[in-house]
Amino acid sequence: MLGFDLPRRLTAEALGTAILVATVVGSGIMAENLTRDVALALLGNTLPTGAILVVLITILGPVSGAHFNPAVTLVFALRRELPIAEAASYAAAQILGGIAGTIIAHLMFALPMIDLALKVRTGGALWFAEWVAAFGLVATILGGLRFAPSAIPWLVGLYITAAYWFTASTSFANPAVAIARALTNTFAGIRPWDLPGFIVAEVIGAVCALALMTWLLQPGSVGVNSSKAELQP
Amino acid sequence: MLGFDLPRRLTAEALGTAILVATVVGSGIMAENLTRDVALALLGNTLPTGAILVVLITILGPVSGAHFNPAVTLVFALRRELPIAEAASYAAAQILGGIAGTIIAHLMFALPMIDLALKVRTGGALWFAEWVAAFGLVATILGGLRFAPSAIPWLVGLYITAAYWFTASTSFANPAVAIARALTNTFAGIRPWDLPGFIVAEVIGAVCALALMTWLLQPGSVGVNSSKAELQP
Amino acid sequence: MLGFDLPRRLTAEALGTAILVATVVGSGIMAENLTRDVALALLGNTLPTGAILVVLITILGPVSGAHFNPAVTLVFALRRELPIAEAASYAAAQILGGIAGTIIAHLMFALPMIDLALKVRTGGALWFAEWVAAFGLVATILGGLRFAPSAIPWLVGLYITAAYWFTASTSFANPAVAIARALTNTFAGIRPWDLPGFIVAEVIGAVCALALMTWLLQPGSVGVNSSKAELQP
Amino acid sequence: MLGFDLPRRLTAEALGTAILVATVVGSGIMAENLTRDVALALLGNTLPTGAILVVLITILGPVSGAHFNPAVTLVFALRRELPIAEAASYAAAQILGGIAGTIIAHLMFALPMIDLALKVRTGGALWFAEWVAAFGLVATILGGLRFAPSAIPWLVGLYITAAYWFTASTSFANPAVAIARALTNTFAGIRPWDLPGFIVAEVIGAVCALALMTWLLQPGSVGVNSSKAELQP
Repeated sequence: MLGFDLPRRLTAEALGTAILVATVVGSGIMAENLTRDVALALLGNTLPTGAILVVLITILGPVSGAHFNPAVTLVFALRRELPIAEAASYAAAQILGGIAGTIIAHLMFALPMIDLALKVRTGGALWFAEWVAAFGLVATILGGLRFAPSAIPWLVGLYITAAYWFTASTSFANPAVAIARALTNTFAGIRPWDLPGFIVAEVIGAVCALALMTWLLQPGSVGVNSSKAELQP
Repeated sequence: MLGFDLPRRLTAEALGTAILVATVVGSGIMAENLTRDVALALLGNTLPTGAILVVLITILGPVSGAHFNPAVTLVFALRRELPIAEAASYAAAQILGGIAGTIIAHLMFALPMIDLALKVRTGGALWFAEWVAAFGLVATILGGLRFAPSAIPWLVGLYITAAYWFTASTSFANPAVAIARALTNTFAGIRPWDLPGFIVAEVIGAVCALALMTWLLQPGSVGVNSSKAELQP
Repeated sequence: MLGFDLPRRLTAEALGTAILVATVVGSGIMAENLTRDVALALLGNTLPTGAILVVLITILGPVSGAHFNPAVTLVFALRRELPIAEAASYAAAQILGGIAGTIIAHLMFALPMIDLALKVRTGGALWFAEWVAAFGLVATILGGLRFAPSAIPWLVGLYITAAYWFTASTSFANPAVAIARALTNTFAGIRPWDLPGFIVAEVIGAVCALALMTWLLQPGSVGVNSSKAELQP
Repeated sequence: MLGFDLPRRLTAEALGTAILVATVVGSGIMAENLTRDVALALLGNTLPTGAILVVLITILGPVSGAHFNPAVTLVFALRRELPIAEAASYAAAQILGGIAGTIIAHLMFALPMIDLALKVRTGGALWFAEWVAAFGLVATILGGLRFAPSAIPWLVGLYITAAYWFTASTSFANPAVAIARALTNTFAGIRPWDLPGFIVAEVIGAVCALALMTWLLQPGSVGVNSSKAELQP
């Protein structure tokens, strides 16, 4: 706890979400420009996203917590580690930062600043995928906080690397990023009217993970344990 | 040793194996949907699997040991670090979790919950490959436990990343995962009647590695050593 | 601070920049020789560059600081951590080392030692992309120095891995490397007369990041902080 | 220094080199079977090799030093950290282990145990590339030993990941591995009569790196140092 004031913390959340979205959108544009193989494009979208997450969480985490994600901020608010008012301002900073990220990516690639997405992403299977994606993300963060706090930048980067591929929705898992992606009609885009389904699924997934992990990692669960076979002591 | 009770440990084994299988199967489906180049599909299957293993072993290892694999559980039982009864319940949790993982992947991609695989994976060469895959996995775990316990999540993730490519069988190396993969007729599938050959080879490979590594890393093997040339002191 | 003398520090800067440029140029030639898919070629250019940066900064950082980049050296000079005269000699060593790197790559691939690039890289969008690329690089370095100094080799390697894809210019972000890349008419090349635009954008981006991060990470910004929700304590 | 006896150390060198070669050869066969894009095949060869090196050096380094490479063993012998007789037995174990690795890979893929390579790899440019590859490898090891010993498994894995792409020869950099690769007529093969050029270049490159790094990292080089700008303190 280094004690940064709220303006700096909100700046960190906005800056981090902006760079994150610029990476997601920008690498998607780059990939789409360079190849017709969609798997290769997804790979060119996945590796930069995972890599930048490790960087951003390492350099901004000590300032603001490096949530970059209203669903994650909600989890910390529910854990009473962030006052409601601050959580709301975090979410606003994340959404504004995310939109800035899309604009930055568009300017770098000489596209119009904003271009509403036409890409359809809807239906029960994709909503379930977003539920899974957010559940896994929050489980990763809470497990990491408990057992390996210094590894969290890596854990989140690796989790998202995996989730881009194993979820049918390519794992948005983040309402602020989802909103920002509605403003780009490129590889990473999502139709604006498909946002509500994604956001609801993400929030429910995050809360479910909070519930399960709170029980699973309960500090009071110490008992007689006959096993010494931990892979990670 | 944080001392989690058996219900939590079994939950961790089931949850971890479910997410692992959902990643293996889900990323295989995603890859197959996006490209016709099988090497690219295998890459899209490899990176998520390696990445999620680092995450899962880090966040669940301190709870249950993060075996996610009956062959690994057997090794710890043979080392008398896990009672037989608990080892059996671990294996059951892993198998049930694995099956749940296949179902989760199918639901995300809007496929039938279960679909028996038709993919043939049999014959002496593939059985030898599975022997090698499991041998290497257990050698990695035992070497890591001895010299770099905190690195085990990375070692296992990297080992599997390599073994997907250097073994002809793409390294199942895990009876619970193999069973779960028999229930999906997609990229990662294996014909149910090819399971016994794979499982027997995996178990023998794991036990052979236990034997060799027990000798090689024997604590009593300290002697006059004239070399100072360790790469890893 | 291990206290290496100036000749050794300049050698380290020249050697590191040479190997970095040999990697950038050499892997670009290799990739271009092996595939017609440009996304795949960029991937074959990205992974080696990110990987070698981790290595070079780890093994040469304690000698010279491992800048390998006049824009980074300028930032440290502005922070008064490097005298102007030494900064100038650093930049000279970096430029000479970079040129040597291009020659080494060409000799390995049996090309003429020097071959001026014809590849056009100019215009406002690309200059903005270079501004972003250098801004992000310096933010990464300064944030890392403050919160995770031992992770800097990884942070820089991962940042460049991401920036190769999310910036429209594939993130040169380095005047010395840009100059060296003007001497190769291969995948990584840049027309010599496009250099000034890139270099100016890079220097401005670096200085802007210094300004923002100096404020954001200001040591005196400790106050009453109601949040405990850091991902990275 | 854990003090393992010579039989265990030689076993570790043979086992490690066998798994390393099985990975290089096996992943090459897998890649060649799955795609016609040679860049993708090289990627499918690179990632497993880099990954397995991290694993093998971590788990076997404390036993034998994890050289797996006669050129590296020679460097430690020249540094008088390994007696000549032991160095010779190390090299023999590495060569025998490497040959076993090729055989293991062939058996997994149902190929004849041994099949002499027809792939031509010769000429001044490739010899220079092997000189560079071995120079960089030994510089990486010696720099790592000096400043970040626990990171050496990662440094070597990352260096080889880069060198597969930036050297025109795809960085054999290892006489034992080169000999083993002469016995496979697949992706990773090298014509037996091209071996001497490669091996001579590798040995000279290793010795040159020893000379330069001994000077550069000289412990006595402490002086008045006006810079505080290390990226890696």
